[in-house]
Amino acid sequence: MNNVCEKRLQELRAYMKENGVYAFVFLTGDSHGSEYVAPYFKTREYFSGFTGSAGTLYVGPDEAYLWTDGRYFIQAERQLRGSGIGLMKMLEPGVPTLFGFLSDHIPEGKVLGIDGRCMTAKEGERYEALALEHGFVLRTDLDPADSIMTDRPALPDSPLTIHEAKYVGETPKERIARLRDKIAAAQGASYLDSKLDSIMWLLSLRGNDIDYNPVALSHIIVDERDVHLFVDESKVTEPVAQYLDLYGITRHPYDALRSFLSEYTFRGDMLCDYGCVSDYYKRAAQDAAGKAGFEVRPFDSPIVSMKSVKNRTEMECLRECYKRDSAKVCSFIRWIQKRVREDSPITESGAAEYLDSLRAEIEDFRGLSFGTISAYGPNAAMMHYQAEPGVSDAVLKPEGMLLVDSGGQYLSGTTDVTRTTALGRVTDAMRRHYTLTAVSNLQLMGAVFMEGCRGSQLDILARMPMWKEGLDYKCGTGHGIGYFLNVHEAPPSIRWRTAPGAIEPALEPGMIVSDEPGVYLEGEYGIRIETILEVVDHRRTASDHFLAFRPLTLVPLDRKLLDPSLMTEETKALLDDYHARVYDEIAPLLPDEDREWLRRETLPLSDPAQ
Amino acid sequence: MNNVCEKRLQELRAYMKENGVYAFVFLTGDSHGSEYVAPYFKTREYFSGFTGSAGTLYVGPDEAYLWTDGRYFIQAERQLRGSGIGLMKMLEPGVPTLFGFLSDHIPEGKVLGIDGRCMTAKEGERYEALALEHGFVLRTDLDPADSIMTDRPALPDSPLTIHEAKYVGETPKERIARLRDKIAAAQGASYLDSKLDSIMWLLSLRGNDIDYNPVALSHIIVDERDVHLFVDESKVTEPVAQYLDLYGITRHPYDALRSFLSEYTFRGDMLCDYGCVSDYYKRAAQDAAGKAGFEVRPFDSPIVSMKSVKNRTEMECLRECYKRDSAKVCSFIRWIQKRVREDSPITESGAAEYLDSLRAEIEDFRGLSFGTISAYGPNAAMMHYQAEPGVSDAVLKPEGMLLVDSGGQYLSGTTDVTRTTALGRVTDAMRRHYTLTAVSNLQLMGAVFMEGCRGSQLDILARMPMWKEGLDYKCGTGHGIGYFLNVHEAPPSIRWRTAPGAIEPALEPGMIVSDEPGVYLEGEYGIRIETILEVVDHRRTASDHFLAFRPLTLVPLDRKLLDPSLMTEETKALLDDYHARVYDEIAPLLPDEDREWLRRETLPLSDPAQ
Repeated sequence: MNNVCEKRLQELRAYMKENGVYAFVFLTGDSHGSEYVAPYFKTREYFSGFTGSAGTLYVGPDEAYLWTDGRYFIQAERQLRGSGIGLMKMLEPGVPTLFGFLSDHIPEGKVLGIDGRCMTAKEGERYEALALEHGFVLRTDLDPADSIMTDRPALPDSPLTIHEAKYVGETPKERIARLRDKIAAAQGASYLDSKLDSIMWLLSLRGNDIDYNPVALSHIIVDERDVHLFVDESKVTEPVAQYLDLYGITRHPYDALRSFLSEYTFRGDMLCDYGCVSDYYKRAAQDAAGKAGFEVRPFDSPIVSMKSVKNRTEMECLRECYKRDSAKVCSFIRWIQKRVREDSPITESGAAEYLDSLRAEIEDFRGLSFGTISAYGPNAAMMHYQAEPGVSDAVLKPEGMLLVDSGGQYLSGTTDVTRTTALGRVTDAMRRHYTLTAVSNLQLMGAVFMEGCRGSQLDILARMPMWKEGLDYKCGTGHGIGYFLNVHEAPPSIRWRTAPGAIEPALEPGMIVSDEPGVYLEGEYGIRIETILEVVDHRRTASDHFLAFRPLTLVPLDRKLLDPSLMTEETKALLDDYHARVYDEIAPLLPDEDREWLRRETLPLSDPAQ
Repeated sequence: MNNVCEKRLQELRAYMKENGVYAFVFLTGDSHGSEYVAPYFKTREYFSGFTGSAGTLYVGPDEAYLWTDGRYFIQAERQLRGSGIGLMKMLEPGVPTLFGFLSDHIPEGKVLGIDGRCMTAKEGERYEALALEHGFVLRTDLDPADSIMTDRPALPDSPLTIHEAKYVGETPKERIARLRDKIAAAQGASYLDSKLDSIMWLLSLRGNDIDYNPVALSHIIVDERDVHLFVDESKVTEPVAQYLDLYGITRHPYDALRSFLSEYTFRGDMLCDYGCVSDYYKRAAQDAAGKAGFEVRPFDSPIVSMKSVKNRTEMECLRECYKRDSAKVCSFIRWIQKRVREDSPITESGAAEYLDSLRAEIEDFRGLSFGTISAYGPNAAMMHYQAEPGVSDAVLKPEGMLLVDSGGQYLSGTTDVTRTTALGRVTDAMRRHYTLTAVSNLQLMGAVFMEGCRGSQLDILARMPMWKEGLDYKCGTGHGIGYFLNVHEAPPSIRWRTAPGAIEPALEPGMIVSDEPGVYLEGEYGIRIETILEVVDHRRTASDHFLAFRPLTLVPLDRKLLDPSLMTEETKALLDDYHARVYDEIAPLLPDEDREWLRRETLPLSDPAQ
């Protein structure tokens, strides 16, 4: 792989020279501000060989660097080896930010290239301001991948499906009406959105254009009278066409947005979320609006916050969905422990395949919500490790720990769960670190907090047990999750490092967030416990409204890895309560042999029977 | 008092009618953005009768309202009774903000008056924007108090003193040089500041112009060559004059700033902290700078953050200062318990006087840092209650609790401490709430946190024990403290309710903050435990730098009010550690009889001897 990338960089540098470009930056984005993108857009991966979901590649005349965050340090080091690309570990002391680096390294008057189609309008503005400040030139009209990637994948073309009303509890008509109220409140006449999960949510549609993300490449324009959906006609089946007609939604080809804008009758300002609409389409909208005497105004998508609060129907579906999903994870844990104990050889990817096959048995299963992470021993120290037969696929032995982070896409919701499991003999250090992780996980789960609290204010509950031991996991504690949509769904999050001045929404009942502290020791082992939590009403007093969390994920923690002497009575009680609920809710869903296993795994910590 | 205010409001309304003003707003400010102000500026108090340190009075043609925060709800209700002024409880559900109220109540075209000399430039801009948005007119040139307050107090004229180098550890020259670096870094040619404690800190001067705040009314202009200090000559003693000459600081009369600005030679933009410079002087600076072709630019005072991090000399002085101060509080607690037990009648104010007299015995004592709060029984439910002989001054009885919140100004620092003490029989509820408060206080004190954490992210450590019981104290958990300066010193703070998008600095070693959770039950009792904490280095690992707190205040909690069965082993250990340090450090400073008392009070919780 690395030799391949070296060659690709040579071709790129030749292209740059030809086009008078001093340096090129490859972002991870598509034309929709997506976190995960269709293969067509994976130019950063093509030129660097780094497959992580977050990273930015800088290619200068003689040097190249990749910036990525703590989840990917170990993986990036491995994948970049021999490529000639240096690793920039984001947020580590002494490591320059990409912007700091560009300020210092692009000489005045030289050209920095970035493909404007793969960059959001917001990013475009920031790069433009930087170029202006430091006197270099930003060119966004070049797409070197188009010339160099001879085998560039086509744009995806999976069919659209309708997300049925019984799962959604709200019609597109109702959601469009709520959106129009927000547009009117902001004195906008129309609204342009390119965010794929927002468009899917608004219209109760789903696609299959991006691995694990049930979305279809599309844009939308909503104004007072009409809704214009830009999606390739090949994706629109007859029932979907009828459904769109029913709601008065006009269809246009995916690539017709630019020409549509140039002919669109503006009746006032157009609102546009600069965080997802690409630089390219924002400029097109600005040109067209300007001619009509109106403006395109930056506007935080109201859909993003609307969809983060799940409604009653969605929450009811989710609770059942998480039970079915949790039951499969329980069966998997029992199965893999037994399998390894019986000394029947299996690898990381074999374990993942088995878990995936169990999930596929669930009636409304529609795929995985991300590639199952099955990481044994030191591999688990890489937060987003992916086993790959023939490349890295450890054989599981009856010792140490297996970390499995997995989730499914169901009509009734998106799941995400991590459990770390002892496969046999474990060291005292492993037990100490697992117990610490469990305490972190439980302390956040047991939080009670005032309405209005933000995730950044709760993060310390999970993190302080780690910090007291001089440890820290280099990622957030939790992220929001979509509803039969993306497994990472902003804005809810639990993380203490927030940008200064960033606007972070308060946690509200109906939001769901992950609770996933961990300990990662490079070359040794990795531990993560991830439980999805629902924000619920806790108590109302005369003056105050308190909220709390209620776990959706119901899979026991591993008793063999817990050292109760390192836990307070309070955290022991939290665990016993959790385990009692796990047994009550999951046992009825399990086959007999798994049920007995679950009973033993969920006994109170103080129970001598264990 | 209330009839008096009713009459004053009548006079005010006549004045408003005469001047064509529809409504008038009285802020609490002076011309320096101070939290506490000299009597000359106390117009809000004059017209409302409300003496709290925070509040805004609105007087309309037929109605009047006072906005204040949770610390003052009970006090304001009492003081406003019969005045015809309604109370607006800030942040309570359903209570409009002042701005929301003004938007709804000032008719288009009508005039809202606010005295621009008592309003910061930032406030001025916000009111102006509001007026513009809602079509009313803002007039800031009227000072109705000047006509109506026939007995208006004069501006204060206490002499300046020099804060000696042995307490400061840094010369004015060094501090001015650090400031000039920040001005240059922001491309400013000059810097205007009106913040009194900032000016005192910069020049190592102290004054006595505001009760409890050792500051002198002044402004300052610093440019590349000169430092201009605007302070009344009557305050400048001969040694101070020599000292200012030594550092090349030019003196001007306090009220000469406006004329000075009009003749000042601008060599570039002037930087100005809009949060403390008054609207009046900002406009004067803008006029003058504009004529020279330059701008006045808003700029967060770098002094504010510089002085929030105490240097080594200051920290060493502070540690000793807090020990001496804590020893006096210990002696006071033993004395008051004994005095009440002996049934020798004493009132709240009598207790306060005795404590004040003990503090005055300390060699470098220079006054109190605020009026001692001595609040017995239900009076303690008012966070900032002030006993007043003849008005409200309860006799202490051998039952219930006495809350004493007090502090001193010393050459070696400013102190602030609250302890709540059982005077005799207490109820189970009191013990439960006191223990809860102690747990809150200890959990914050025991925090370990990553460098970069902000106070808003730690607040939940103190608050969650309360929230779990459905309780909440309606104020922050902690505030920063000046160094022989104001007892409330921003920016450090521990509070979860921060304005969205507000920039809050990270906690740093050398910052000091209070840790003061409480339970306040109107009509029943109030509990507060306040310990001042120093931010210290805790641990450095290969990748991380952890910080922690170390208590400066060393006064035991009240064992008679603690119910160990409501504490975890962890919080018991925190308390025992704290008490062990209290005994070790304070016992040597106490007379024999107090020392034996302290020994008993600081025994480990598990010790049967108690």
